[in-house]
Amino acid sequence: MSALASLPFVVDIAAAMVFAVTGALVASRKEMDIVGFVWLAIITGVGGGTVRDLVLGAPVFWVEDATPIVVCIATAIVIHFTAHLAQSRYRLILWFDAAGMALVTIAGAAKAAQLGVGPVVAVAMGVVTATVGGILRDVLGQEPSVLLRREIYVTASLGGAIVYVAALGAGAGGPVAAGVGMGTAFFLRCAALHFSWSLPAYKARPGREQ
Amino acid sequence: MSALASLPFVVDIAAAMVFAVTGALVASRKEMDIVGFVWLAIITGVGGGTVRDLVLGAPVFWVEDATPIVVCIATAIVIHFTAHLAQSRYRLILWFDAAGMALVTIAGAAKAAQLGVGPVVAVAMGVVTATVGGILRDVLGQEPSVLLRREIYVTASLGGAIVYVAALGAGAGGPVAAGVGMGTAFFLRCAALHFSWSLPAYKARPGREQ
Amino acid sequence: MSALASLPFVVDIAAAMVFAVTGALVASRKEMDIVGFVWLAIITGVGGGTVRDLVLGAPVFWVEDATPIVVCIATAIVIHFTAHLAQSRYRLILWFDAAGMALVTIAGAAKAAQLGVGPVVAVAMGVVTATVGGILRDVLGQEPSVLLRREIYVTASLGGAIVYVAALGAGAGGPVAAGVGMGTAFFLRCAALHFSWSLPAYKARPGREQ
Repeated sequence: MSALASLPFVVDIAAAMVFAVTGALVASRKEMDIVGFVWLAIITGVGGGTVRDLVLGAPVFWVEDATPIVVCIATAIVIHFTAHLAQSRYRLILWFDAAGMALVTIAGAAKAAQLGVGPVVAVAMGVVTATVGGILRDVLGQEPSVLLRREIYVTASLGGAIVYVAALGAGAGGPVAAGVGMGTAFFLRCAALHFSWSLPAYKARPGREQ
Repeated sequence: MSALASLPFVVDIAAAMVFAVTGALVASRKEMDIVGFVWLAIITGVGGGTVRDLVLGAPVFWVEDATPIVVCIATAIVIHFTAHLAQSRYRLILWFDAAGMALVTIAGAAKAAQLGVGPVVAVAMGVVTATVGGILRDVLGQEPSVLLRREIYVTASLGGAIVYVAALGAGAGGPVAAGVGMGTAFFLRCAALHFSWSLPAYKARPGREQ
Repeated sequence: MSALASLPFVVDIAAAMVFAVTGALVASRKEMDIVGFVWLAIITGVGGGTVRDLVLGAPVFWVEDATPIVVCIATAIVIHFTAHLAQSRYRLILWFDAAGMALVTIAGAAKAAQLGVGPVVAVAMGVVTATVGGILRDVLGQEPSVLLRREIYVTASLGGAIVYVAALGAGAGGPVAAGVGMGTAFFLRCAALHFSWSLPAYKARPGREQ
């Protein structure tokens, strides 16, 4: 259990790195300077966990130990000089991003659950941790938001968080619940990437002639 | 007075539902999927109250009791399947939204006042509660912000909050102050809708030939 | 030292005014109404310090004493009626804005350092205080973000914050460190304005034919 208790911070660092890569790649597409790379990498990397901690009233995870920020800065600098390589491996990065999303969803929900919140809030905190950084990245980089692109991304995070919280509620141990939750989120996202799945979009005035 | 003390949470729930409708309608115009509907409904529904609570250093209102989140989710699902009906009743929804805005402005200002802040901050918190959700909705849905549309919306909320706080300061009882404040905000908004009122826009270089 | 302890709030007020001017000028370019001027002036004026305080877990600086809000409101009203004058003096305003940015960077980093955070977080808080208001202003006013414009603005703030924190770490007294930090930030920004400096932008696929 003490291992689990220390899990979220390690996960926050790993996720910060993966998410920072996606932030830095948006910076490269927008031809920002290196400080823009660093800013966008930090916001993408720690934005979700920061909002989670603020809403939960917990100390923001990178204020006491700034390792996640340092990781984001290093990631941004590396990507600034290698973005053409990273772009050509963009599909590969999407798989890492899927793993990061799955890890962070469960870590965020676990942190919330440890603070004693109810199941709905625990699920919401998992999704917030996994998606808010990317939403901020898209707003600041003036790209179409993940909300508008109709990818199975928020949905995969949501599915994983629900499975995790339901498993906990059904009496599963923390590691088992985390395993099936992460597996669900990762599988959903990977399947969506592989098969180009998307949820049906709402169509204005279905079945009616204009 | 105990009735008044419990008012804000009920109002937060009612407002979450009304605001969630406007969020879900933006999702329908942008042809998002159902998870996009839910996300945008939640952000619109609880965004203003969340920022208010964070700024005031109070526990975020939906963390302890997640009813407002559940209400937003249910609203989003209903709208996802009935948005064509809701769109055709858009004028009707605007009146409900006006009522929601008026309620939430006063509830937000009252919550701030109960925490002992000064009158300027109480007014600001009323306006924040009523308008930040809609501003986030417009940014994330990539619609022109309510700030840019020059509707009497923020203004109506501001007017109601000022009347409420001024009435409290003049010695009026809580319910009386709340009544005149809500009436002011609702009347201003409805009149603006009915008469298509707007404040004069700033015009670049007035009275000068280019 | 007690003088230094009280410095940040005075600086927050001065910066709120300078930043509020830039917010109100965006409102004038977007031809908002007067309430839009006030909203955007407040968000630009106090947004950075608000995010800093939330992240640090400190009480938000304008909740206890609303002077910065009042200053933003007054500034917005003045600019609403004089924006054509202000626009024609836009270069002058950029110098004031540079001074405000330099002051606020150091004040933000100093506030963080006084709360006992490490050097990376102190630097980050300085940059956040100086730039987040402007970023919010650009998002809400639908202008290209300072991140996308590749000006030496975030960079100047970052340079000043690093020099300040490094000087403190090297044993310099608070006022000396603040002086060299502010000087660095101000000098970098002014030199960038005067010489139209910018950092090299990332270019997609350097040295390769498409």
